[in-house]
Amino acid sequence: MIKEGDLVVIWIDSRRIYLVKVDPQKRFSSDRGYVDMSNLIGKEYGERISLSTGREAFVLKPTPFDIYRGLKRPTQVLYPKDVAYILYMIGAKPGSSVVEAGTGSGFLTISMAYFLGESSKIITYDVRDDTQRSAKKNADFLGLADRIIFKLGDVREKIEETDIDAVFFDMPDPWNAVKSAYDSLSPSGSLVVFVPTIIQVEKTFMSMRDLFVDVHAEELMSREYQLKENAVRPKSIGVWHTGYIIYGRKSLKGN
Amino acid sequence: MIKEGDLVVIWIDSRRIYLVKVDPQKRFSSDRGYVDMSNLIGKEYGERISLSTGREAFVLKPTPFDIYRGLKRPTQVLYPKDVAYILYMIGAKPGSSVVEAGTGSGFLTISMAYFLGESSKIITYDVRDDTQRSAKKNADFLGLADRIIFKLGDVREKIEETDIDAVFFDMPDPWNAVKSAYDSLSPSGSLVVFVPTIIQVEKTFMSMRDLFVDVHAEELMSREYQLKENAVRPKSIGVWHTGYIIYGRKSLKGN
Amino acid sequence: MIKEGDLVVIWIDSRRIYLVKVDPQKRFSSDRGYVDMSNLIGKEYGERISLSTGREAFVLKPTPFDIYRGLKRPTQVLYPKDVAYILYMIGAKPGSSVVEAGTGSGFLTISMAYFLGESSKIITYDVRDDTQRSAKKNADFLGLADRIIFKLGDVREKIEETDIDAVFFDMPDPWNAVKSAYDSLSPSGSLVVFVPTIIQVEKTFMSMRDLFVDVHAEELMSREYQLKENAVRPKSIGVWHTGYIIYGRKSLKGN
Amino acid sequence: MIKEGDLVVIWIDSRRIYLVKVDPQKRFSSDRGYVDMSNLIGKEYGERISLSTGREAFVLKPTPFDIYRGLKRPTQVLYPKDVAYILYMIGAKPGSSVVEAGTGSGFLTISMAYFLGESSKIITYDVRDDTQRSAKKNADFLGLADRIIFKLGDVREKIEETDIDAVFFDMPDPWNAVKSAYDSLSPSGSLVVFVPTIIQVEKTFMSMRDLFVDVHAEELMSREYQLKENAVRPKSIGVWHTGYIIYGRKSLKGN
Repeated sequence: MIKEGDLVVIWIDSRRIYLVKVDPQKRFSSDRGYVDMSNLIGKEYGERISLSTGREAFVLKPTPFDIYRGLKRPTQVLYPKDVAYILYMIGAKPGSSVVEAGTGSGFLTISMAYFLGESSKIITYDVRDDTQRSAKKNADFLGLADRIIFKLGDVREKIEETDIDAVFFDMPDPWNAVKSAYDSLSPSGSLVVFVPTIIQVEKTFMSMRDLFVDVHAEELMSREYQLKENAVRPKSIGVWHTGYIIYGRKSLKGN
Repeated sequence: MIKEGDLVVIWIDSRRIYLVKVDPQKRFSSDRGYVDMSNLIGKEYGERISLSTGREAFVLKPTPFDIYRGLKRPTQVLYPKDVAYILYMIGAKPGSSVVEAGTGSGFLTISMAYFLGESSKIITYDVRDDTQRSAKKNADFLGLADRIIFKLGDVREKIEETDIDAVFFDMPDPWNAVKSAYDSLSPSGSLVVFVPTIIQVEKTFMSMRDLFVDVHAEELMSREYQLKENAVRPKSIGVWHTGYIIYGRKSLKGN
Repeated sequence: MIKEGDLVVIWIDSRRIYLVKVDPQKRFSSDRGYVDMSNLIGKEYGERISLSTGREAFVLKPTPFDIYRGLKRPTQVLYPKDVAYILYMIGAKPGSSVVEAGTGSGFLTISMAYFLGESSKIITYDVRDDTQRSAKKNADFLGLADRIIFKLGDVREKIEETDIDAVFFDMPDPWNAVKSAYDSLSPSGSLVVFVPTIIQVEKTFMSMRDLFVDVHAEELMSREYQLKENAVRPKSIGVWHTGYIIYGRKSLKGN
Repeated sequence: MIKEGDLVVIWIDSRRIYLVKVDPQKRFSSDRGYVDMSNLIGKEYGERISLSTGREAFVLKPTPFDIYRGLKRPTQVLYPKDVAYILYMIGAKPGSSVVEAGTGSGFLTISMAYFLGESSKIITYDVRDDTQRSAKKNADFLGLADRIIFKLGDVREKIEETDIDAVFFDMPDPWNAVKSAYDSLSPSGSLVVFVPTIIQVEKTFMSMRDLFVDVHAEELMSREYQLKENAVRPKSIGVWHTGYIIYGRKSLKGN
């Protein structure tokens, strides 16, 4: 049963999916009509509701995709396909410790907080105060802020934490922070880096190859399909590029 | 410090990555040389070891990728890119309940057990006893079997559990089990289906569209890169196709 | 030297490329300014001109890409990547004979007329008079209409020509015309088919496999790159799907 | 009717396609059996023949794909998808003049000779004598050598021809030959460059941007499909990378 303060998704159609917090004093509005949120209270998830225009909608329970949709984004964000694969690569599970930089919109940070649960340690660094405030607001809205430690700081100089299970970088010059990651990671810990150009891939690789083993890189592409009877086919236009993912594990080569 | 009974990875090069259980009575062998496992005990993760041939290797801590590599596979398995995205789509977190069919090699099952931790409920169905035994052995080897409930049974007839957070199908005719998934899911719960052909995508979509909302489909492609100074570029040959992923959320449309 | 009646391209930037016929009485206009065409006469190809706004532009010689850009398109057209590959597959060279259906916008027809020169025989069928008129206008504008025979007719019933080197189909139900193609082709002649869905690929294949050999299918994707110093990378958004191409050669299996 | 000296294709299955010259004294052999070529004489194209093992095969007329298959390749060659698109981009038609460097295996050169017919002017440069001899042998075998001018020389120093319609480069450092191409091209002529890495794309672009307009780059990918009843789908493994294609047209910017 939906109650006051719950996060819910109002699903109208595939282009109109909204993440809202149920406030009985407020009204949800869209270009397809509005509904007073007091009407949502007591509904079951999955139920059909009617907007003011008579248009049908559904109230749903938020998923990680809805977190993505609900973010306020001052900066470009990672896409779900990349976040999913990065989470997998990092290998973090309940109890793990992860350091990330930069915070950006907080999408990966928040996704980690969602998936890792309460027992983990998630630290996110950013050099910009305004960016991080905005990410913290996103985490607050989703009720996940208390699982995340936000730090203003430059990982190219230092990562304060040690014995960390995994480090993730989404920043313009990750090669300048690879040594910090190395010092922060526990032996065999994973470093994952996301960059948009091949020149950055090369520079990152060059900075990692003497400290890390199992260094490899790939790019994920998602091709969406149109679902229609007798006409299932790839959508004509779509996203062809987000970025490249580089992975490595800390070795004790130099020791 | 590595000790008897630990699972470790012996990393020789990018094509020679082995997941082994440390048994001081046994010897690890490869085409690049061997090492008596008793020599691994007391090493730190990330340390360099020498094989009998003088060839260098590293002992690493297992990650989800190594689980993938270490599976005995009687059947075709999902790829990490697909497992990563499916885990994300399912949205399962510590405490969630998930039903899966068929078990196959157990790769997704085991990945869920790894990522969801001990507090979750993971049930996997298969119609074939031999397949499931083999998957159970994989889970045992990885120390994750006690987090999984293996059931011999046909989900096209019935899924015994109810109020489940997410259902995943990797089977030839998922459309025949969509109703079972619907009955088993909690309202707004997620159904994720993986199939290799477009005809299956269409049939699955047709069977879902009256019961589920937010139904969509996509295909993930991973393009690997060669990492080499001044010659970073996509590898010439690679995997072009694994399968299509269909997603939907249970609605209460009919109620 | 450019003279009256010449087809020229006015290139302003990568999004503003116009194919025009030089008419000294007319003015070329765009959202970046205009130029009286009389000013183009006597210019050399490749020269810089100034638009009324002071904006720079270039006068260029038309290429096959410009033909694509200059078409009036009542219907969806093939893309250059597909036309290029189809022309290659067909293997038509000066002197060859090719039958095509349907005419559509005439893009392939006109491309064939451009590449094959005057000694070839290009016949294009369509069931719709209005479509074909429009394609003919396109061919007229480009000065290539006299190399093409336009026929109103249904190739599912019959292709009148025989001993044809290659047949190309871009129509909703090519499988209903495969027998006509067979009868029209010379022994070992090529049939090339373009369709947007996999179900059509399967049906086409099923209708071809007893009459043709070397039957295979593929899909071409073009990924465009952003060219910018230190930031060369794939464009974020692009075309992910146009259609599938099926190829086969007429055998005398049944004989 | 097939006669002595004809080039024919012996098609056994999709992996066994052979381009041979009919010599009644010789025998064609494969791992599926042999056939004395004297038996081919008098057959019609498209006819079924029997190999010594009883295995069926077909005699077909060579297409551009068969040229590709029949080349002796001392070096890596362009793929048909790339050659097709390059031919399209170049825009060469009967009567055009084209300069190419390096010759490589001669695949593009020979393809141009095939498609452009006898009235065109095709000049191919290479710095290596052995490579070019081998390419010339390929062209001879295909009966197309007399349409091609082979030149031993370094296009980075000079292209001797002027007023050329299009120039194509497939060489390690095309940026060092861009000025030669410019000097050789007629105004508005096309320069097309093929390179395997992004760093080369960037360098090529930087060398072209002040001399050429309409400079753009793309990458073509071909995804092959398995054709099987009820199981049409992309082949699992395939070619993911050949190279990037850069295009530009000579402007008179500097004049």
